[in-house]
Amino acid sequence: MNYNIVVVGLGLIGGSLAKAFQKYSHCRVTGIDSSPQVLAAALNCGAIRRKATPEDLKKADLLFLCLYPQADIDFLRTHASFLHTGCIISDVCGIKSYLSPHLAEIAAQHGLIYVGGHPMAGKEKGGFANSDADLFLGASYLLVPCGAPEESVHKMAGVAAELGCSGTVVTTPEEHDREIAFTSQLPHVIACAYVKSPQCPGHAGFSAGSYRDVSRVASINETMWTELFLDNRIALTKELDTLISNLKDIRDAIDRQEEETLCSLLREGRLIKERLEET
Amino acid sequence: MNYNIVVVGLGLIGGSLAKAFQKYSHCRVTGIDSSPQVLAAALNCGAIRRKATPEDLKKADLLFLCLYPQADIDFLRTHASFLHTGCIISDVCGIKSYLSPHLAEIAAQHGLIYVGGHPMAGKEKGGFANSDADLFLGASYLLVPCGAPEESVHKMAGVAAELGCSGTVVTTPEEHDREIAFTSQLPHVIACAYVKSPQCPGHAGFSAGSYRDVSRVASINETMWTELFLDNRIALTKELDTLISNLKDIRDAIDRQEEETLCSLLREGRLIKERLEET
Repeated sequence: MNYNIVVVGLGLIGGSLAKAFQKYSHCRVTGIDSSPQVLAAALNCGAIRRKATPEDLKKADLLFLCLYPQADIDFLRTHASFLHTGCIISDVCGIKSYLSPHLAEIAAQHGLIYVGGHPMAGKEKGGFANSDADLFLGASYLLVPCGAPEESVHKMAGVAAELGCSGTVVTTPEEHDREIAFTSQLPHVIACAYVKSPQCPGHAGFSAGSYRDVSRVASINETMWTELFLDNRIALTKELDTLISNLKDIRDAIDRQEEETLCSLLREGRLIKERLEET
Repeated sequence: MNYNIVVVGLGLIGGSLAKAFQKYSHCRVTGIDSSPQVLAAALNCGAIRRKATPEDLKKADLLFLCLYPQADIDFLRTHASFLHTGCIISDVCGIKSYLSPHLAEIAAQHGLIYVGGHPMAGKEKGGFANSDADLFLGASYLLVPCGAPEESVHKMAGVAAELGCSGTVVTTPEEHDREIAFTSQLPHVIACAYVKSPQCPGHAGFSAGSYRDVSRVASINETMWTELFLDNRIALTKELDTLISNLKDIRDAIDRQEEETLCSLLREGRLIKERLEET
């Protein structure tokens, strides 16, 4: 694999993509970032060959948008005309229903091919400083083709394999957003709500794995996640309503000392988890 | 350290205690369990020397109650007269306000010394089969003296060190229960409520660390946790009310598309988490 790749936005995911291509492929990666310090760091460690020039955009086989949702749209709108026909545009964003149609439309207007993407990998701390060539090893890579030709989807699956991903799942923007609301956005809301307990500052010495796991992602980048949450408003509020309702059922059974009800509510959770582990 | 120790209840924690004493100390450990299979397994791997006899109870320097709360009380009530004066009685239970006064009272009536204990270690799967001599390495060990002489508390701290714990925290039953409601019980309720989402069965391929961490402890032993939750009803419902209220604030900000409010709610969580990481 020796594509010309431009990575736009060298944060945790963009930076990790650049590093992974450098480590695991023969692709030629150039990058764009609003921060001169980040660009210097990416150059310095060899993650990118250079700051992408107009010539690099023109020669790109693949352009990864790794900014926030609206910034992805704005970037493509202003730069689409620099890219050559047939260039694949992908993104790594955690929401798709709002974003993908915009990107697909701009791409189509310029003869480009949009294949949405979302690697199921992350860290509790963002930024290029935390990026890692091995971030994608064993991860699932979601592909959201939005009507892209099968050949391009296949190409993106090859890219995911080259990054060390365990496989790809092809999905629609809507299914993507419903699942991500549950698997990723909801845990971030939970972490944030959880650490606000008055007992939290006194946890040291009184806590172990359960506390650590639930609170892990509370160091949220509030600017990015505000945009992601609002762009997935309907699916996420639905998940939050479901969770709050389930929490209240357990809370009420405890409060009313309804032993059998409580036991049966907990059993339901255990059985769901056990069934999932069997599959 | 070469105490005579009886471990009552060879589940995850009791079994791990027996294995750890066998691996890391010169203590002579005998055990009691209602399951002949578990006793046979514990004998077989050398975790205990034998099923504890009345003579072993009589010679015990230290007796660990590792049953469910009410069963701990019942066991001590029926066996206290077998133990010799000055024997230390401890437990490993996740609730103390209800349990400790009962155990302390029975102990006092028989010239025994109660020092409550709670090692901050566990696994998502219980039972002797999952017990592990190394379970306590690096863990905090909570001690709840309830008026026990300092010498006995010191002895228990020595035991915790021998098990490989990183340190002990001496606390009251009430403080213990308030913190544990937050650090341990609440995450178990969250995990159970979380996996009940209709999106949960479809998570495969769409999930990574956030999903894994929040759902990890959902394979709850509902019989044990029902008892633990009900025995800590007031502290736990308070934590649940706080969590639900914090979740609702975020949910409403998303639903109403109040960007600034949402961003500020998320920022609050991040700042709490970051302050905790600094200390």
